[in-house]
Amino acid sequence: MSEDYKITLSEKDMPDAWYNILPDLPTPLAPPLNPQTGSPVTPDDLKPIFPDELIMQEVSQEPWIEIPSEVKEIYKLWRPTPLHRARNLEKALGTPARIYYKNEGVSPPGSHKPNTAVAQAYYNKKAGVKRLATETGAGQWGSALSFACKFFDLKCTVYMVKVSYEQKPYRRILMHLWDGEVFPSPTNRTNAGRKILEANPDSKGSLGIAISEAVEDAATHEDTNYALGSVLNHVLLHQTVIGLETQKQLELVGEEPDCVIGCVGGGSNFGGMALPFVRDNIKNGKEIEIIGIEPKSCPTLTKGVYQYDFGDTAGMTPLLLMHTLGHTFEPPGIHAGGLRYHGDAPILCKLVHDGFIKARAYTQNPVFEAAVLFARTEGIIPAPETSHAIKGVIDEALKCKETGEEKCIVFCFSGHGHFDLAAYDDYLEGRLKDYEYPEEMIKAALNDLPKFPTGI
Amino acid sequence: MSEDYKITLSEKDMPDAWYNILPDLPTPLAPPLNPQTGSPVTPDDLKPIFPDELIMQEVSQEPWIEIPSEVKEIYKLWRPTPLHRARNLEKALGTPARIYYKNEGVSPPGSHKPNTAVAQAYYNKKAGVKRLATETGAGQWGSALSFACKFFDLKCTVYMVKVSYEQKPYRRILMHLWDGEVFPSPTNRTNAGRKILEANPDSKGSLGIAISEAVEDAATHEDTNYALGSVLNHVLLHQTVIGLETQKQLELVGEEPDCVIGCVGGGSNFGGMALPFVRDNIKNGKEIEIIGIEPKSCPTLTKGVYQYDFGDTAGMTPLLLMHTLGHTFEPPGIHAGGLRYHGDAPILCKLVHDGFIKARAYTQNPVFEAAVLFARTEGIIPAPETSHAIKGVIDEALKCKETGEEKCIVFCFSGHGHFDLAAYDDYLEGRLKDYEYPEEMIKAALNDLPKFPTGI
Repeated sequence: MSEDYKITLSEKDMPDAWYNILPDLPTPLAPPLNPQTGSPVTPDDLKPIFPDELIMQEVSQEPWIEIPSEVKEIYKLWRPTPLHRARNLEKALGTPARIYYKNEGVSPPGSHKPNTAVAQAYYNKKAGVKRLATETGAGQWGSALSFACKFFDLKCTVYMVKVSYEQKPYRRILMHLWDGEVFPSPTNRTNAGRKILEANPDSKGSLGIAISEAVEDAATHEDTNYALGSVLNHVLLHQTVIGLETQKQLELVGEEPDCVIGCVGGGSNFGGMALPFVRDNIKNGKEIEIIGIEPKSCPTLTKGVYQYDFGDTAGMTPLLLMHTLGHTFEPPGIHAGGLRYHGDAPILCKLVHDGFIKARAYTQNPVFEAAVLFARTEGIIPAPETSHAIKGVIDEALKCKETGEEKCIVFCFSGHGHFDLAAYDDYLEGRLKDYEYPEEMIKAALNDLPKFPTGI
Repeated sequence: MSEDYKITLSEKDMPDAWYNILPDLPTPLAPPLNPQTGSPVTPDDLKPIFPDELIMQEVSQEPWIEIPSEVKEIYKLWRPTPLHRARNLEKALGTPARIYYKNEGVSPPGSHKPNTAVAQAYYNKKAGVKRLATETGAGQWGSALSFACKFFDLKCTVYMVKVSYEQKPYRRILMHLWDGEVFPSPTNRTNAGRKILEANPDSKGSLGIAISEAVEDAATHEDTNYALGSVLNHVLLHQTVIGLETQKQLELVGEEPDCVIGCVGGGSNFGGMALPFVRDNIKNGKEIEIIGIEPKSCPTLTKGVYQYDFGDTAGMTPLLLMHTLGHTFEPPGIHAGGLRYHGDAPILCKLVHDGFIKARAYTQNPVFEAAVLFARTEGIIPAPETSHAIKGVIDEALKCKETGEEKCIVFCFSGHGHFDLAAYDDYLEGRLKDYEYPEEMIKAALNDLPKFPTGI
């Protein structure tokens, strides 16, 4: 076994293809449905806002989809990312477990998001699109898409939830720096935005409203498409570069993982890390334990119901079969903004439903306690979202300490926390609130679930 | 020649020794002088605030000083750092030059500073010291030292200039996160601080005052030493790991540099990158052009006088032979806080004086223009300090475009700009002021130069 702290790959060892789990699923993934008709959505339904190649990837039955060389050239600015052995954390815990983390925080926008942003920008550029519109909450996805568009000479329009636009100037500046245009949503640029502003001129916006604005912008402009940073099949597909690199790196040091962990919001970093290992379980008879970690304030996989629901708050998108807390559910304002989504990627939800993936939930304070221990042992500062995974890893490692098991635990370090230091300040000063499972709020939102179709 | 974007080294290829240029200088470095006596400072003078091994490194005539394994273990959390080929920047400039940058921004505190912070913490721990006191302006050095102390179970006390403490909460939080204690200086903890506060209870502090407080704290507590982040010989020594790794990486791709560039504040990142190449010129007959870049608002190397002066504003330190603008010079408030020092490392000043190193100065706006081009081509966001080097590199590369020379240009990317986005906002919104060489201010400060000794 290697004595190194970091396992690096050379650029020529970067994967040549993304892994598509759809053909390997034991039973087919339920299709998205048109909420008006209850029938499966057709590719034609999606053409006004997505390019053909992404629509094809969304339903492809090819297990491997080649990464275009143009995308690889941009990936090489930061990929392959290092896999770290968390030796100092292991020592601090006194665990016999070996802990590895895949550091996606080294990308210029600081997270795993550009893995799909670059691919989406490329396919849109190839299809002759001139501009991409998207929404962003705290700004992770908006900054990744601005970054990606810059390399393909595409314009990027970001509808940023107004309250975040005002409270998080750093991510807005990041987008400007990469030449993205950013508007505090609701705006006067769309019917959806104007309607909200008429009713409430002081609206601070919501992710649901911002999605509506971005989709409308894309649908009403010939040269403009829409881009989404999580949930969809093609997003998880592009993110599998994380897990595929990790597999090569573990092989280099002769490791076989016993446990793979990630945080789950919409599911893109966790899916990207986990799906190649799910493949090992399904195709190669491995028995790797795969665990998604979510906040107790938004416990989609652990407390949601598995049925068709809208992807957005306003109820404009196709219906997706997923674990949902109800599309009108508004989670408490925790610092891990990227994990505040009422649903989850349909692929992940099916794997949870079918028993291939486990889920676990934590409140904020123990998560930040884990993050601070990580920063004080490994040095690197994790994003609040990533810190959920770290809390899960620490709990697994402490179990090993009790049992003496020398497990190999691998997790996705989805992003750094350089723009989230105010959250650490709140934790260190004792100002963080622990939101338990908000039962009444979820019950109310579940009452709003679409009655038709009735689901599975 | 490699097609790669990044040249990586494995951990076993990390240098085993730092390079000490003192014995290789064609003439000896002038010693620091005791301002009372005019005689060279003795090791005994330094013992109240520095451990023996660092004092010995300050004057050592050994060309190679072994890096202790305990220091290497911490370095390995992020070292060796990648050397990037800036292919996208080259394309955008249309230059035949090949541009490489050594990315020191990948360290947990985000700059080159921990290269010496970890070493200083180690030698102090070994000497039985319990606590380190230091000053910090914008917070780069204070956060690096807090980070380093955490790994050796040393307490870290940081006197942070009050105006920065209030304006830059992120770096203060960073220090807390790594368990450093931070006080807005002037404080009531020292005589120096109390004296200032008596005269002016609303004092916003200065680096000079903060140095006085940290030195007094160290000198008056048996278990406490002082640590400095730049200027001194042992600091530059530890930083040579940058240049030594770069040499190995260039060799891997068959490159010989024509030009080595860095930004200069106190000289630690530039010295760390440049000194191993200066060695190549002195010892191996190479003719590498070596250029330090500084701000026009604080043009130490380009406009300072070469004579003995105090290292601090208050006139408490030994006298150093260096290019100085006068120790009472207060440079305008540019965003590159790390480059606002009235002097420079004596080793670098001697090399400039003797013609081994060139210096060049720029104003803020062209520097940020270069930084934005870099962020939009290479992706990574440079610190304002680092951006000075980038402006120098771009000018060299554009010269190559005119002449057709296929030069190999290498520079030190000393740190990322994640905590400096407000400066980018100012630039993008047209709010940045260009301070030209503040001739009158410098003249006034030069009048305050110590009259004894009269210098060289």
